[in-house]
Amino acid sequence: MNGVDTAALRSVVIIGTGLIGTSVALALQRKDIQVYLRDSNPAAAAAAAQRGAGIIGRPPAPADVAVLAVPPSRIAEVLAASQAEGMAHVYTDVAGAKSALLAQAGAFGCDLGRFVGGHPMAGSESSGPSAASGSLFHGKTWVLTPTADTDERTLSLVRQLVRATGARPVLMTAGQHDRAVARASHVPHVVASALAASLARADDSVLAVCGTGIRDATRIAAGDPVLWDDILRANAAEVSAVLGEIAADLISVAHALLTGSPELTSLLERGNVGRMKILSASP
Amino acid sequence: MNGVDTAALRSVVIIGTGLIGTSVALALQRKDIQVYLRDSNPAAAAAAAQRGAGIIGRPPAPADVAVLAVPPSRIAEVLAASQAEGMAHVYTDVAGAKSALLAQAGAFGCDLGRFVGGHPMAGSESSGPSAASGSLFHGKTWVLTPTADTDERTLSLVRQLVRATGARPVLMTAGQHDRAVARASHVPHVVASALAASLARADDSVLAVCGTGIRDATRIAAGDPVLWDDILRANAAEVSAVLGEIAADLISVAHALLTGSPELTSLLERGNVGRMKILSASP
Repeated sequence: MNGVDTAALRSVVIIGTGLIGTSVALALQRKDIQVYLRDSNPAAAAAAAQRGAGIIGRPPAPADVAVLAVPPSRIAEVLAASQAEGMAHVYTDVAGAKSALLAQAGAFGCDLGRFVGGHPMAGSESSGPSAASGSLFHGKTWVLTPTADTDERTLSLVRQLVRATGARPVLMTAGQHDRAVARASHVPHVVASALAASLARADDSVLAVCGTGIRDATRIAAGDPVLWDDILRANAAEVSAVLGEIAADLISVAHALLTGSPELTSLLERGNVGRMKILSASP
Repeated sequence: MNGVDTAALRSVVIIGTGLIGTSVALALQRKDIQVYLRDSNPAAAAAAAQRGAGIIGRPPAPADVAVLAVPPSRIAEVLAASQAEGMAHVYTDVAGAKSALLAQAGAFGCDLGRFVGGHPMAGSESSGPSAASGSLFHGKTWVLTPTADTDERTLSLVRQLVRATGARPVLMTAGQHDRAVARASHVPHVVASALAASLARADDSVLAVCGTGIRDATRIAAGDPVLWDDILRANAAEVSAVLGEIAADLISVAHALLTGSPELTSLLERGNVGRMKILSASP
């Protein structure tokens, strides 16, 4: 990078003090950055402040960066309102889908030069400020999705913020991001949920034979249904397409089991290949 | 139990020294039981013996119990041959599906009074005698599926064997067992394989966003395709039916994502319920 990186990050306002917002705040506190906390729910802001995440309230002058850590469906609206108020110089978010958000933000008349989409690849089945951790992002990938509209200073400040949390910024387009997370995160969530749902009415004989396999395979199905409904609907087209692929594979195996045809063997072999590929990714 | 339990377990022959057979042998060695090892592959038997799992060869007199730890599709044939040879007084197996096996064993003319099906709920993504462990079954459930034909002495000796490995014997019918493992183990294996297969051709952007969720959800997809093909085909009807249910859920969600209908929310909520149920099972 060039001279723009010298605009150092000194103050950040976190809008939405749930698990991710509070974890960002706690990570930045370790770096001598002034953090302001805002949440439409005063109890959530108070809980974050009590954990030492920052000062509740509006920054006295525009903060360097505002992090929008509100539910995905509310980001465009909150971005428009925050830009109108002059809450910060530049803005980013932490939502799990990026393309639809850009379109919504455009429709709300947001200044897209001073916004860059972001998505930290870290989370927890728990939620809320009490589950937050300042080391949640340490060593993790944090995707940023600049567009041709994004100002250089916007990207520079947000990259500094990402590095300050201990994460590694990775740039890709919003479309690349959405296709990638559909396959790596959103579809696995739905599939694990369907698997867990198939045991919702399990009797004692089923529970007696549950081992570590089913436990691991369904861990993510414990996620908050309201939050995940929002995440998945924000990336609906990509998720829907990959779910269709997987359903077709399952139907083909269900049929192969009854007829003895070879699609079962071939799926198990492709599963081995995919598993090796997943293990080859940095954790 | 009554007096039949006093027929103490003194000698066992393990037929098939893969991961499970060798692990059973190692567990029994700790209990002062004489263990004989047999495998159609001399290298596998030698590897098990070298690990201290027992003595290679046929027992000089019939052993108390023979454990058939060969691939599921070969059990009925090996049971018939072993009974004809008088290898042991009573017999059990360790395969993951029980109903079809009983029918096959009947067709082979086996003595079903001196056989009881078994299925230890323990395993590993690894295979072969080198991955075996004498503590593999410690604290785990080991299902036994006696029928009206099973002699009391058969069940008593095999229960002793199961307890000697540190496992907890749980009795159910072959049909109950097959329905239960379809849901708790066989279908999860296929679903995890389909999920992993969907990443078999993943590019760098997908690998950059792979986190612990997809890693956990696909762990079991690393299993041996040849072994699992055999396991799944042995429980084809039950597995096929549950796969159909899950595929229908995924298609319904794929549709709900495009139309905004509520099946997504309902699946995520049922997933939460199922996950709690799985966690309520003893591990």
